[in-house]
Amino acid sequence: MQTSTREAQPVLVDGVWNTANFGATFCSRNPNTGEDIDGVFPVSDWTICDRALASAHRAFLESRRMSGSRLAEFLEAYAAAIEQDREGLVETAHAETGLPKSPRLADAELPRTVNQLRQAAQAARNDSWRTATIDTKANIRSCYQALGPIAVFGPNNFPFAFNSIAGGDFVAAIAAGNPVIAKANSSHPATTLRFAKLAWGAMQQTDMPQGMVQLIYRTTHEDGERLVADPRLGAIGYTGSRSAGLKLKAVADRVGKPFYAELSSVNPVVFLPGALQERGSKLVDEFVGSGLMGAGQFCTNPGLLLLMQSPETEAFIQGVVGQYTAATPGTLLSESVERSLVQSISILEKAGASNLTGGSKLPGSRCAVANTVLRVSGSQMLADTHTFQTEAFGNAVLIAVCADLDELISIIDALEGNLTGSIYSDTSGRDDSSYIRVADALAQRVGRILNDKMPTGVAVSPAMNHGGPYPATSHPGFTAVGIPASMLRFAKLTCFDAVRENRLPDTLRNANPTGSTWRSIDGEWTTRSI
Amino acid sequence: MQTSTREAQPVLVDGVWNTANFGATFCSRNPNTGEDIDGVFPVSDWTICDRALASAHRAFLESRRMSGSRLAEFLEAYAAAIEQDREGLVETAHAETGLPKSPRLADAELPRTVNQLRQAAQAARNDSWRTATIDTKANIRSCYQALGPIAVFGPNNFPFAFNSIAGGDFVAAIAAGNPVIAKANSSHPATTLRFAKLAWGAMQQTDMPQGMVQLIYRTTHEDGERLVADPRLGAIGYTGSRSAGLKLKAVADRVGKPFYAELSSVNPVVFLPGALQERGSKLVDEFVGSGLMGAGQFCTNPGLLLLMQSPETEAFIQGVVGQYTAATPGTLLSESVERSLVQSISILEKAGASNLTGGSKLPGSRCAVANTVLRVSGSQMLADTHTFQTEAFGNAVLIAVCADLDELISIIDALEGNLTGSIYSDTSGRDDSSYIRVADALAQRVGRILNDKMPTGVAVSPAMNHGGPYPATSHPGFTAVGIPASMLRFAKLTCFDAVRENRLPDTLRNANPTGSTWRSIDGEWTTRSI
Repeated sequence: MQTSTREAQPVLVDGVWNTANFGATFCSRNPNTGEDIDGVFPVSDWTICDRALASAHRAFLESRRMSGSRLAEFLEAYAAAIEQDREGLVETAHAETGLPKSPRLADAELPRTVNQLRQAAQAARNDSWRTATIDTKANIRSCYQALGPIAVFGPNNFPFAFNSIAGGDFVAAIAAGNPVIAKANSSHPATTLRFAKLAWGAMQQTDMPQGMVQLIYRTTHEDGERLVADPRLGAIGYTGSRSAGLKLKAVADRVGKPFYAELSSVNPVVFLPGALQERGSKLVDEFVGSGLMGAGQFCTNPGLLLLMQSPETEAFIQGVVGQYTAATPGTLLSESVERSLVQSISILEKAGASNLTGGSKLPGSRCAVANTVLRVSGSQMLADTHTFQTEAFGNAVLIAVCADLDELISIIDALEGNLTGSIYSDTSGRDDSSYIRVADALAQRVGRILNDKMPTGVAVSPAMNHGGPYPATSHPGFTAVGIPASMLRFAKLTCFDAVRENRLPDTLRNANPTGSTWRSIDGEWTTRSI
Repeated sequence: MQTSTREAQPVLVDGVWNTANFGATFCSRNPNTGEDIDGVFPVSDWTICDRALASAHRAFLESRRMSGSRLAEFLEAYAAAIEQDREGLVETAHAETGLPKSPRLADAELPRTVNQLRQAAQAARNDSWRTATIDTKANIRSCYQALGPIAVFGPNNFPFAFNSIAGGDFVAAIAAGNPVIAKANSSHPATTLRFAKLAWGAMQQTDMPQGMVQLIYRTTHEDGERLVADPRLGAIGYTGSRSAGLKLKAVADRVGKPFYAELSSVNPVVFLPGALQERGSKLVDEFVGSGLMGAGQFCTNPGLLLLMQSPETEAFIQGVVGQYTAATPGTLLSESVERSLVQSISILEKAGASNLTGGSKLPGSRCAVANTVLRVSGSQMLADTHTFQTEAFGNAVLIAVCADLDELISIIDALEGNLTGSIYSDTSGRDDSSYIRVADALAQRVGRILNDKMPTGVAVSPAMNHGGPYPATSHPGFTAVGIPASMLRFAKLTCFDAVRENRLPDTLRNANPTGSTWRSIDGEWTTRSI
């Protein structure tokens, strides 16, 4: 951070583009060139945070009673605006993050982002997300309702799909009727500003309250904690580093406020012997494709492989090492990601992991680390499971070679919570009994079990769970991806007991609110009216 | 607490009735007579807690994969055993709590408890609670699954229906496939022991693992915190005092574990002018019936009345004061409840509330306080909303008389989270516009809105929400009453991505697991098979 005389980019607070009330500034840097992008960005002071909270609170008085159609109109106008500015967004995000323009940004992440906005619009319009539950005999009716303004802290690794002002948490919060105070990730503020301008345009177009969508870039740690604790805020969606997340979570916990955090995950992948025997070299390709995709900078990157000792395991490892050594390392998102990756590798090595390839900064390049493969034995890992679960976010993998299935399962039992766990098995049945034991253990540790599939794809499906036991996330019952389930994080359950029918929210009146809203009436799911 | 040479009652740990490993003991006392009931109860040491956790962990390895029918068999056998021992349970609970045998214990709470066990059995058998969500195109399927052993801390005020080893949290945890470590409430350990014996019999009868249901009475505070933090425990259900609850919650929060707490609630009741004009004296009766029921010792007791100044309001207050003065005060659950009630009344009086009747310990009786009515003006209340929200648990009420509707709504906006909020309005439409404003404000502060109805009845309905914003409970999205919703607190969401069909849990296979399980398949709720 620096104090700068260059004009700072504006924050969006209470519908106004504001360049006042900051002390320090910071720059967005191109990880490939080290150059600044689009000027400097302000570290906002408490005056700005307070104004944003007040405006969000006012907006909530309107938005909590807004029809799903009105919220949908905003989300759809915003989606259309993003599509219009597609090239600009891709250019800016590429410059800021080093992520490839195509296919990654233009052909995968941007369409996904637009799709999420439209799915959320659809969910808001349809109203089934409210899970209306009606007991006609007792005349007790309940449903989920908007919770309050949501602060969204977005991660560094998805400048579009998890952007705090356009991504998964954002759409879930808005579609449930909550204003959003977006806190830009410091590694792509220019992309975030670009989104904010589009969101602001869509707000004007669809007559949203001024505080419905607001943007700040940074605050002091103290003000960040004060923001999280403020009673005007309903909940927080946070994706990012574990240390910063846990500090904010502690503040939210103290005031009893939901804090939905996604903190870290090594995403164990188990290769059972039959699978290696049946299709070992194919599995090398499959793993390397997933492990090095986006320079390994995915929440669901496979960072820990569990195998049992055998000639096929050695051949698999050799194959992985060969491909990791040969592949050109991708650009990392920032110097901070590079630093943290090198540090994590060093922690794993110091704990006793042997380095099979890579392990250090790539000479002659900015923000890149050699593709890295580390190896430990199962017994080594068991002796220090805490350290060997260190997440090396980026293009590095730790391979644990276990003596037998019991040892492998003991390692799973000692794992912290993870987002995913994958199991590769053969097709002829040799692995079947092992599969059962591994899957049973893994299901306690992860939010999503994959079968013969790498974890890096996270489909936006109603059945998806992008969640998992702590510390993968802060609550094992919620998902951050998958509409409408992700919306329930930003909702409160409200029951209406003997309330006269004309005073009920539309969702709970006798007539089906849309004609196609799913409601549970006297224990039966139906779209009929009462 | 005391060290005693009298033989202590046993704890139930790992299927064994154990009287070892304790230092101190405590007695259960009859609040009417002050006599000890059924000997002394042990304060267990860490050895016992550790053994219980280990046994619960072992039980969970089985129970998490148990069919709903097996869990249902246990719950139903237990329900039948409770019915068999009905007279003994009522005698013991009456002696320990002072609650009337009839209708309260024998005719209301015991049938409700048995009903909850049977509803939970039904929910376990039917499997719809798992909220199976299936995306057939992507072959992604998810559902809720058992979370892990649950520690249940039960409250003092429902020796049956919320008993830690028989009540709402217990049935929700078991029906979702989780073992329970019950921590008896210190004001009715003998009743809890009696339940434990019945549960143990039902466990033997239905071949449950030894650690499925366990009972301890007390631990040191230190061991209680250690228990909550232990990784073998999946979550905690806590109903009780705010101070003790918040200490345990802080421990659970630090290790990222769900802590479902119900802490306190003053349950505001708004009487709009038209309602008072239309049926003022009827409302006096209605309020007094609810306010003094069970000596006011309900989580949903109406403890704060909000009215606007008028002759009808004065007549209402006069009516309430008359009846409160005339009615015989009920016996309180314990000396500790009495102490705490007198203290809370004193806090409210010191803050400026005027005493209209009652206010102190009832002379010549054990565990009883005179029925108490306190009064403040709206402006007094607004000047110190924190203090005037002090919960006076028992037969006391605070009446706030507001200058106008704006003031009344400002008070609602300043309230903490509550379980319920009630609004009384007229039938001819005079109150309609006021109703909308009050209900809109109240809906942000409470889990359940009631219309022309007192909050003390909490129906066990799927549409019930016995929950609310902090500090009423620790999460605004969950309910502690209402099956199957209450079970979701003790479950984790697990997704199966591309998992072969024969490896899926029954719930997620193509065939409907029971023929009548509700599942969301490709966005449509259905009981059909795929």
